[in-house]
Amino acid sequence: MFETPLAIGVDFGGTSVKFGVLYRSNIIDQAPPISTQDFDGPDSLIEAILRVIADLRARHPKVEAIGVGVPGFVNFEKGIVHNLTNVAGWTNIPLKKLLADATDLPVVVENDANCMTYAEWKRGAGRGLNHLVALTLGTGIGGGVVANGKMVRGANYGAGEVGQMSIDWKGRRGAYGNIGALEDYVGNQEIAADAHQTYLDAGIDRHLAECSPAALAREALLDDKIALAIWDDIGAKLATAIMSCCWLLNPQAVIIGGGVAKAGDILFNPLTAHLYSQLSPTFKERLMILPARFGNEAGMVGAAALALEESGVVLQP
Amino acid sequence: MFETPLAIGVDFGGTSVKFGVLYRSNIIDQAPPISTQDFDGPDSLIEAILRVIADLRARHPKVEAIGVGVPGFVNFEKGIVHNLTNVAGWTNIPLKKLLADATDLPVVVENDANCMTYAEWKRGAGRGLNHLVALTLGTGIGGGVVANGKMVRGANYGAGEVGQMSIDWKGRRGAYGNIGALEDYVGNQEIAADAHQTYLDAGIDRHLAECSPAALAREALLDDKIALAIWDDIGAKLATAIMSCCWLLNPQAVIIGGGVAKAGDILFNPLTAHLYSQLSPTFKERLMILPARFGNEAGMVGAAALALEESGVVLQP
Repeated sequence: MFETPLAIGVDFGGTSVKFGVLYRSNIIDQAPPISTQDFDGPDSLIEAILRVIADLRARHPKVEAIGVGVPGFVNFEKGIVHNLTNVAGWTNIPLKKLLADATDLPVVVENDANCMTYAEWKRGAGRGLNHLVALTLGTGIGGGVVANGKMVRGANYGAGEVGQMSIDWKGRRGAYGNIGALEDYVGNQEIAADAHQTYLDAGIDRHLAECSPAALAREALLDDKIALAIWDDIGAKLATAIMSCCWLLNPQAVIIGGGVAKAGDILFNPLTAHLYSQLSPTFKERLMILPARFGNEAGMVGAAALALEESGVVLQP
Repeated sequence: MFETPLAIGVDFGGTSVKFGVLYRSNIIDQAPPISTQDFDGPDSLIEAILRVIADLRARHPKVEAIGVGVPGFVNFEKGIVHNLTNVAGWTNIPLKKLLADATDLPVVVENDANCMTYAEWKRGAGRGLNHLVALTLGTGIGGGVVANGKMVRGANYGAGEVGQMSIDWKGRRGAYGNIGALEDYVGNQEIAADAHQTYLDAGIDRHLAECSPAALAREALLDDKIALAIWDDIGAKLATAIMSCCWLLNPQAVIIGGGVAKAGDILFNPLTAHLYSQLSPTFKERLMILPARFGNEAGMVGAAALALEESGVVLQP
């Protein structure tokens, strides 16, 4: 039914592990997600993952590679998971070797934000580009960098952390001691908390749940002045970190995905206005600010594409 | 006397053009600098440059390539100077072609901060590294990026502008409309102006000329509390932009040169303290903060090395 190559993309999240069989960027089959909390450690969870992979391969014998995106710090070359945010017990797990030995297929293990970046670069908004920065806006802010037509993973596979870049040298102190981290201003919860305070300052006690980015986007569409001002503020903060990326890397495109990006023009209009007012004429003429093509499936798509490319299977155009 | 390959390095500054004959990183001969203000436009200045190059080649027949570093915006591939900061009339000058046609030698033309970066990478503090960020601290702040063992020039040869990265989203508005640009806080003149104000606030009317980075470094060595606090402040501001570079690119080393870096430990001690307190454990264990090896000669050394490498002459180890 489908031409090869197929690949399994595994999206290892903080609460569940999701599985897809990918033909290019199409998820042609999925397995039911498994919950990380049902397992008391990496060994049993990896066993469960292997059972799902075996089921999927039984249905799709042409699967040629497996890609896993994980929410944490990974040695990409060795495929060792050094630690995972929000999943206990995952310290220095040689996941690539364990899966490869058990399946006899090529396996890649990569940070989830890098998978998203790879998906957008090879299959999405950034196809054909050689220089790009990708951001995913959610509870945290992840990202990735492509320069000279290659992923930039850096000295210790730690590159791409746009959310940890500073926008204020005297600002809030973040999780790593870093002052003014973008994530500490425009992460989901920080947006909601700041918006709650902004409404309070205007004499409106708006419930915190009604201050989520989605709720604020609805209010902005209804022309609520406070919500519009909040989005302008979010745009200015995001523009600051992106502007720094542009001066440092001069990318062809900045690709923006994740839940907060679903606000669409409500976010992109103030963001691009603030950004373009802070770049040299040469940069701004040519820089593209692009919404990500992929949503929740970005991790699977990127992991699968990366697995095929790394294992030497030629990516289809 | 010297083994080939030799190259001519030309350091095209805002006020003068300097020439050296380079054997590796050694300047084995120099010509008297020529003043840019003695010429009424690019044509006559280029003629003068060609006369100096001819003189140097007459003395060193083994010169195999010419590299020119310029203080402005360059299309590296085509060797076109789009514009120069502080030198009038230099708009869209095809300098590489003009020099190559006249000398029949391979020529490269590159931004001066990229030349400095290249010098440190190939001949200086960053030898053998694949991921680094370089900064040069002076009147302005320039920089350059190496990732995956390649110079990052970006989509329009504009990458590496560390000095334009923001450290304050509500800060000073700079030359390109960018808010909170590092350069607008720790450029030479900004350091002096801020220091003057700091002394004033402490009831001391210190002459502006005595607030230069060099003067402040002397005072700090004498344990002047105000000067020490000023350097701590400079270190914190620099650390903010460098920290952002580290989270984004995860370099093996950050190399810091230029006049302000001559303060040595007076600068590097607070800078590294502020920087290391804002990185994840993995980063900080391995990141090197290195003083640049080269001073004023960096541009010449880099331009010459780049010219040899680009023209296919193998760089000597």
